[in-house]
Amino acid sequence: MHMTTTSVAVAGASGYAGGELLRLLLGHPHVEIGALTGASNAGERLGTLQPHLVPLADRVLQETSLETLSGHDVVFLALPHGQSGAIAAELGDDVLVVDCGADFRLADPALWERFYGGTHAGTWPYGLPELPGAREALRGTRRVAVPGCYPTVSTLVLAPAVQQGLVAPDVVVVAASGTSGAGKAAKPHLLGSEVMGNVSAYGVGGTHRHTPEIIQNLSALTDQTVSVSFTPVLVPMSRGILATASAPLVDGVGADDVRAAYEKAYGDEPFVHLLPEGLWPQTQSVTGSNAVHLQVTVDEDARRMVAVGAVDNLSKGTAGAAVQCMNLALGLDEGTGLTTIGLAP
Amino acid sequence: MHMTTTSVAVAGASGYAGGELLRLLLGHPHVEIGALTGASNAGERLGTLQPHLVPLADRVLQETSLETLSGHDVVFLALPHGQSGAIAAELGDDVLVVDCGADFRLADPALWERFYGGTHAGTWPYGLPELPGAREALRGTRRVAVPGCYPTVSTLVLAPAVQQGLVAPDVVVVAASGTSGAGKAAKPHLLGSEVMGNVSAYGVGGTHRHTPEIIQNLSALTDQTVSVSFTPVLVPMSRGILATASAPLVDGVGADDVRAAYEKAYGDEPFVHLLPEGLWPQTQSVTGSNAVHLQVTVDEDARRMVAVGAVDNLSKGTAGAAVQCMNLALGLDEGTGLTTIGLAP
Amino acid sequence: MHMTTTSVAVAGASGYAGGELLRLLLGHPHVEIGALTGASNAGERLGTLQPHLVPLADRVLQETSLETLSGHDVVFLALPHGQSGAIAAELGDDVLVVDCGADFRLADPALWERFYGGTHAGTWPYGLPELPGAREALRGTRRVAVPGCYPTVSTLVLAPAVQQGLVAPDVVVVAASGTSGAGKAAKPHLLGSEVMGNVSAYGVGGTHRHTPEIIQNLSALTDQTVSVSFTPVLVPMSRGILATASAPLVDGVGADDVRAAYEKAYGDEPFVHLLPEGLWPQTQSVTGSNAVHLQVTVDEDARRMVAVGAVDNLSKGTAGAAVQCMNLALGLDEGTGLTTIGLAP
Amino acid sequence: MHMTTTSVAVAGASGYAGGELLRLLLGHPHVEIGALTGASNAGERLGTLQPHLVPLADRVLQETSLETLSGHDVVFLALPHGQSGAIAAELGDDVLVVDCGADFRLADPALWERFYGGTHAGTWPYGLPELPGAREALRGTRRVAVPGCYPTVSTLVLAPAVQQGLVAPDVVVVAASGTSGAGKAAKPHLLGSEVMGNVSAYGVGGTHRHTPEIIQNLSALTDQTVSVSFTPVLVPMSRGILATASAPLVDGVGADDVRAAYEKAYGDEPFVHLLPEGLWPQTQSVTGSNAVHLQVTVDEDARRMVAVGAVDNLSKGTAGAAVQCMNLALGLDEGTGLTTIGLAP
Repeated sequence: MHMTTTSVAVAGASGYAGGELLRLLLGHPHVEIGALTGASNAGERLGTLQPHLVPLADRVLQETSLETLSGHDVVFLALPHGQSGAIAAELGDDVLVVDCGADFRLADPALWERFYGGTHAGTWPYGLPELPGAREALRGTRRVAVPGCYPTVSTLVLAPAVQQGLVAPDVVVVAASGTSGAGKAAKPHLLGSEVMGNVSAYGVGGTHRHTPEIIQNLSALTDQTVSVSFTPVLVPMSRGILATASAPLVDGVGADDVRAAYEKAYGDEPFVHLLPEGLWPQTQSVTGSNAVHLQVTVDEDARRMVAVGAVDNLSKGTAGAAVQCMNLALGLDEGTGLTTIGLAP
Repeated sequence: MHMTTTSVAVAGASGYAGGELLRLLLGHPHVEIGALTGASNAGERLGTLQPHLVPLADRVLQETSLETLSGHDVVFLALPHGQSGAIAAELGDDVLVVDCGADFRLADPALWERFYGGTHAGTWPYGLPELPGAREALRGTRRVAVPGCYPTVSTLVLAPAVQQGLVAPDVVVVAASGTSGAGKAAKPHLLGSEVMGNVSAYGVGGTHRHTPEIIQNLSALTDQTVSVSFTPVLVPMSRGILATASAPLVDGVGADDVRAAYEKAYGDEPFVHLLPEGLWPQTQSVTGSNAVHLQVTVDEDARRMVAVGAVDNLSKGTAGAAVQCMNLALGLDEGTGLTTIGLAP
Repeated sequence: MHMTTTSVAVAGASGYAGGELLRLLLGHPHVEIGALTGASNAGERLGTLQPHLVPLADRVLQETSLETLSGHDVVFLALPHGQSGAIAAELGDDVLVVDCGADFRLADPALWERFYGGTHAGTWPYGLPELPGAREALRGTRRVAVPGCYPTVSTLVLAPAVQQGLVAPDVVVVAASGTSGAGKAAKPHLLGSEVMGNVSAYGVGGTHRHTPEIIQNLSALTDQTVSVSFTPVLVPMSRGILATASAPLVDGVGADDVRAAYEKAYGDEPFVHLLPEGLWPQTQSVTGSNAVHLQVTVDEDARRMVAVGAVDNLSKGTAGAAVQCMNLALGLDEGTGLTTIGLAP
Repeated sequence: MHMTTTSVAVAGASGYAGGELLRLLLGHPHVEIGALTGASNAGERLGTLQPHLVPLADRVLQETSLETLSGHDVVFLALPHGQSGAIAAELGDDVLVVDCGADFRLADPALWERFYGGTHAGTWPYGLPELPGAREALRGTRRVAVPGCYPTVSTLVLAPAVQQGLVAPDVVVVAASGTSGAGKAAKPHLLGSEVMGNVSAYGVGGTHRHTPEIIQNLSALTDQTVSVSFTPVLVPMSRGILATASAPLVDGVGADDVRAAYEKAYGDEPFVHLLPEGLWPQTQSVTGSNAVHLQVTVDEDARRMVAVGAVDNLSKGTAGAAVQCMNLALGLDEGTGLTTIGLAP
């Protein structure tokens, strides 16, 4: 057990992911919060930028630079994509670098270029410990690629069925998301007046950047490339994703087979909660928590499995996963500083 | 042209569908609003129950009975399912009866019994004029079954592709809906505290009552039974449905074929608006209007067509369709008293 | 009766006030919509910027200039403050100019400079016909200053009591407003993530620009300067203002006196609706309508009158008032193209 | 220091206050959660009723009775008013009883009868430790009356000014509240469809039950009865109260005097956070936390002090205060199990 205090820095502390990281780190018993950095708002007090983080109100944001970030045991990067590679290269190999951005998630450089543009930075251990083999790869690592919020829930909601071959490798995911996933940069279509009383789809037709990540995750569970039709939908709330996923049932597979696969896959997982039969996930139940709530059923008429998952995009979908992975990398108990208890209503 | 004044009664005037009917009828130039009836709130003033309908504030709700409803040219029924049949039987054949409930939508008595229970009341002309043949059947009719809100948008968003055989008859629809579709009866899970900041799926696995109606509509467009995986999702807003639909593309079909089919199908429809390429529907744009906004694309990786549609569940999804059908039945211009202009933001 | 068609131009057609103006003008029987202008988005299609205005989807925004705006009978200005004066000076005196901005609302140049900065443009007839003498001044005018949204409801909710001397000239107003009042320019604190699940006060301590306008309106009703403590509060909805106002009761004044004063003041007003006793205003009831809902009571323990008013900030609070004033100026029926019916729920 | 484990029971565990108590108690290091009781839902699993409380999902609600509640060190009562007295009388004097309801808050039986009806149950130490003398009275007590949510923030936002005589004893409070304060019982006006996009005032004119509690609190700080005009406003969010309070400044008092009084009063309070000048409270910053955020200014034109306070009605407004008082009563560190960090956005 690692009982000494770990010093952490957070690059991108003024954004939503950075704020959620700090909220969790403030409650982590083995962590000391060091440098906090920003871009255009360097020099401002955190009390102005993140007024909910009262204990850090007097902290002043520094510039994001090697100088400010070095000297910590752990550096969390919550930056726009494309910026993590250069910083990570300069930080020593003994520093644990946890990238909340997309730079090191994809294995295929061609997919990176197609969806993000620019040069692929590389591939780091993928921070979804609930996937087969992932937890082992994260123990002791010094580099972590935190998954995207949509891929986290889209992968977990489908993984047991895909891995067990209970469904055809041809899945459809429609995921309703709160607005915080789009970040804190002011854009007209994200104004309160535009999102309240309004639901809209975007990135339709497989164009959302999280699509190849979902395909990568699911395809790794089987010997086939999984076809994924993914549509994100923006809904009037700040936090949370509800993913509705379905796939054709393989002949002979029934409801009991499906449920058994999910129970087996997640029975020992501390943060994946398969609800009792008849209850369906709701995002409110996981607000602020690291839990993923799942339910699954079978539509015999359509001969499809339908599974629904809920996650807090900022917590388990980003910052919670980052802390969970830090714990694994440092040899701490995986759940330290995290909770399965949501804030509702 | 029918220029005399038509007297209308509304049964169920205290609910959301009834309120929306009255809002539209107050703006209809050829209508005189007669009896307004309720159940438990008979005797109350409409000003208390529907304070937004200022011109009717002093009207008092009557009991729903043959006595109060008879003597009108048109009777709108906005009642819980199972109650319309008996009332309609007593009203004369010369009275136009527009049922906003489910009683007369399904053709198959077995499906009615499976999804609603009790005895099937019968089948009336289906009030979705945009379907092939439907407009003709509605002209001059004295009985109309107004479609369900989900079936309206789920059918329209898929119809051209299904009818033209551009997709396999195996569709997936995930539809995000505001809360008013669940009605005004107080239930704990519909409390503001439960729905704000929260998204949840319900009726998962093909169990929602609107599923067989969607199957019926789409199957009538082709020579096969269309398989429909339908999942409704409750989102934090009062009005509106956004349906995200997809289906496997038939070999050789491309984006141009799909778009051409939608342009041809809806080019002359006054209330179906295929958005310019690149723009995606949002529910706010159709709030309070009778318009359906649609967009369609092709996901070449997943080889699926993806189409999205937005509708106001209370307007075009219920009350607007009812008025549109009344206009057709009475020989009025189909759009009288209706608008394609939404209330945004 | 003016039955020929009036040509109107709208400067600032891409914003919220401009959009609401167009929504109302599309339903006005005597108006033809001419030039639509914008600033940074000149050249864009209105279908992209205001997708709810389907009939105008193919219109292209022009530059805001004398050239584009001239040649119309009516020009509506929905521009940032400080820009209306120069444009109005160039348009002829025979053109009806309706300014939805603040430039011509205040009579006192010193107050203008203190609250807005820059040079005072002048004072035009004030577009709140429900104030004593205002309707007469608006008939036939060619210049109208549309009131601010907060002043509209704050003035109407207090005017009868102030004018009749039933309360001391020392009022407190706390007004909860939806976000559309802050406009469509993207600012971080107006993001959906920031406003949903959140309530905040701003402009506290009499610093909001609408404060001197409320003082001006109320003071004109009595022979004293009325002291106004005004606090605006931002709440999680797009449209609507609910103003809660109170003032010390003068000795001997009771509930009956107060109610009688409001009934007398507004009994004949088409758009001011004093609710039956026991019912309190809610913003939903006036959404999209030109109505103001009011209620008033007396707190005998605190010896204060408390009055509450609801208005749609974009409709009666801005664009509806603009159309109402246009009707008066042109000699049309005052309510043409306007409604007292709200969109609820 | 009390390091043994304390057993606690919660009566009313299915409601919002009960759920929030359990959320906090699950994170409290010295507490073991014992009996959980309900009324109509006794026998149901907590996983169904409070799905966000994953660690308690398999707990079954018991009947609320002496039998189920006895045998614990602490009993929290989260019951409808009027029920706590009989239960408390039967529990021994050595049991700490923390009443989250209204039964024991008011000192004056006549006020109890006027506002609540029925017989006054008595008066217990008042659970607002931040008031003068209150903390001392709570240490070691075995009975606590948790304050109402509105009185908590309304009192704290005004107390320093009233106590120091900086304002006249004549205050106005308008408090915007989320819907969870109204509880989980299904009532039509609390439906999501009714509260979203809607703001309404209620209990206007001093009729809300929290009015006498605010008067009692403020009057105890001075030698005069403080006149309080209190108006609650329902806004579209689940949690949080923003109170806007004002009062006439005493002659000669300026902004510096006011700020100094607040800094002095709350400088050492762990849960009251006076924001830096220029920042105004927002409810999002205190969501889920035990903090109260305050700001104060002076309106020189109106010669009024204006103060704004934000609180989470369920946390510091109810359950957080209950835990804070339990800590004091048991001799634990006052902040054990509580946080000043909010959940935002």
